[in-house]
Amino acid sequence: MNKQFLLAARPEGMVRESDFMLVETPIQTPEAGDILVEVQYMGLEPAMRGWMENRADYIAPLALGDVMRGFGAGRVSLSNNADYPVGSLVTGSFGWQQYYLHKADATALQRVPEGVSLRAAIGIFGITGMTAWFGLERIGKPTDGDIFVVSSAAGATGSVAGQLAKIRGCRVVGITSSATKCEWLTDTLGFDAAVNYRDPDWQQQLAHACPDGIDIYFDNAGGEILNTALGLIRNAARVVLCGGISRYNASSPLSGPANYFNLIFRRASMQGFIVLDHTTEFSAAIEAMQPLVASGKLQHADTLNQGFEALPSALIALFQGANQGKQLVAVSAQRQSL
Amino acid sequence: MNKQFLLAARPEGMVRESDFMLVETPIQTPEAGDILVEVQYMGLEPAMRGWMENRADYIAPLALGDVMRGFGAGRVSLSNNADYPVGSLVTGSFGWQQYYLHKADATALQRVPEGVSLRAAIGIFGITGMTAWFGLERIGKPTDGDIFVVSSAAGATGSVAGQLAKIRGCRVVGITSSATKCEWLTDTLGFDAAVNYRDPDWQQQLAHACPDGIDIYFDNAGGEILNTALGLIRNAARVVLCGGISRYNASSPLSGPANYFNLIFRRASMQGFIVLDHTTEFSAAIEAMQPLVASGKLQHADTLNQGFEALPSALIALFQGANQGKQLVAVSAQRQSL
Repeated sequence: MNKQFLLAARPEGMVRESDFMLVETPIQTPEAGDILVEVQYMGLEPAMRGWMENRADYIAPLALGDVMRGFGAGRVSLSNNADYPVGSLVTGSFGWQQYYLHKADATALQRVPEGVSLRAAIGIFGITGMTAWFGLERIGKPTDGDIFVVSSAAGATGSVAGQLAKIRGCRVVGITSSATKCEWLTDTLGFDAAVNYRDPDWQQQLAHACPDGIDIYFDNAGGEILNTALGLIRNAARVVLCGGISRYNASSPLSGPANYFNLIFRRASMQGFIVLDHTTEFSAAIEAMQPLVASGKLQHADTLNQGFEALPSALIALFQGANQGKQLVAVSAQRQSL
Repeated sequence: MNKQFLLAARPEGMVRESDFMLVETPIQTPEAGDILVEVQYMGLEPAMRGWMENRADYIAPLALGDVMRGFGAGRVSLSNNADYPVGSLVTGSFGWQQYYLHKADATALQRVPEGVSLRAAIGIFGITGMTAWFGLERIGKPTDGDIFVVSSAAGATGSVAGQLAKIRGCRVVGITSSATKCEWLTDTLGFDAAVNYRDPDWQQQLAHACPDGIDIYFDNAGGEILNTALGLIRNAARVVLCGGISRYNASSPLSGPANYFNLIFRRASMQGFIVLDHTTEFSAAIEAMQPLVASGKLQHADTLNQGFEALPSALIALFQGANQGKQLVAVSAQRQSL
């Protein structure tokens, strides 16, 4: 049988376990050209909140009763397609289920590159790693000596963006949600400074960590963190709008950053992007990142929760900042994951 | 004697006449190399609110007791500089006074181009016209068929930006503050549509005028107008942050545009600029605009108030939206202005 989580309700305020419904359905039989993937890991992303709500119109709508969308990694367990023999390791938009049937006419099944683990394939080399790469390269446009600040810095995207900026010669400051994560950023990942936004004086700490202002602000947070960073930008700064985790579960009406007006005084720009616009360029980015990962210059971490049933609670934990690096869930029907 | 308005107080809420103090001082005598300009017209700009407050750090601070800053046009009345003989027509940052002493070592005295009136020199060919040109060309980057929306559309900058966008092949929609101004925009200036934001259903009107969304939004307003426009942008839109007249006289804490987040979904950008960064390119822009003005393709208007003493009330009227086109004041000590 195939366990699936269906979208049971549009979330209001914080995502709840009851927004999902667990069902078991017979595993579908592959027809000519089809491939059956046994899903091993699901990656969780803050953007899922938007998918659940159908606010995110850059991606096909999710109806109530649909299998919840999610990017995963797995192994081909039945194949009618010679290009993907049984045992092939693949990633794709598999959804929250243990078996994914890839139809002959479907696209978007990616091969896991040689030498890359399944976990890394949906972590640093997956959507969130790609988000860090393209946000930095295409919008942040770092140059040597730039002051780079990133929020949700210990998350899957932020931790990679910060390290990539460091490799590009920036001074890197991370904003995150605990002292432990701050330590991880500076002591393990090599950030120049880190600020815990739960400290009452975090705004002073941030200003102190960036005495000359900010050239690139990579925003995963929104809210007061974005506003504070906008107050510190310097001339010709680039604000990379990547996400807004503080917004996704808000139940009261949201306001925008009052300091947006500083974009005028500082001749600065704020630009949004959708990583899925760059899928045709993913392989080139992965190729560029692989040697950095292999040499240990670019580190990655994940937080792995066990068991298919853990998906909803792991998503909620992600919004509470429990993860360090990529939030994954081992969802395989088989006891042991690859 | 030289009449001057000094900055008497930092404004709180709406600018008041009492924020300025009228004084009369002896006209200074030009020394070697100096030039004395008899100021004929002062141009008024919304940005003046920021100068009074010292919020605008892109320009030298104004201290209490300083002559209020302002760009004007006038005639050289005494000269110790062969490059500017008596009678030369010039523009510059003369300040709110009737006589401006240009020191030998000062820069930033511009010659009025051949065939351009003093009023046009500080209107369409002055700071506000340049703001329209550089905001459109450098940030808006119009292409044929783009949908272009501008706020404060009947103002000195908005009316020029809209016409320039029209010349560049855009569909142009203006947002302004009265039915009369709407009529002027569509019937005289050739805008495709205009919306009066004082109408209760202006947001529906705007959406109706832009059924396919907005490619370029040129913002002079901030506040709810910016927010509404951000809700209508389409993919790869450019939001030109030029000003925020709704903000300048606000007495309560300002909020930002909640719809900024749409910049992500729409892969769009919002960028600020300061026209004074482009002074070395002004003459090229003026040269490009002159034939458009001469042929009547690019029209301009101004609202002229009479008498030096009218400066404070004219500035207040500007914030109330009383002007159509450039707000000028004829300030000459002589009875008749050129």
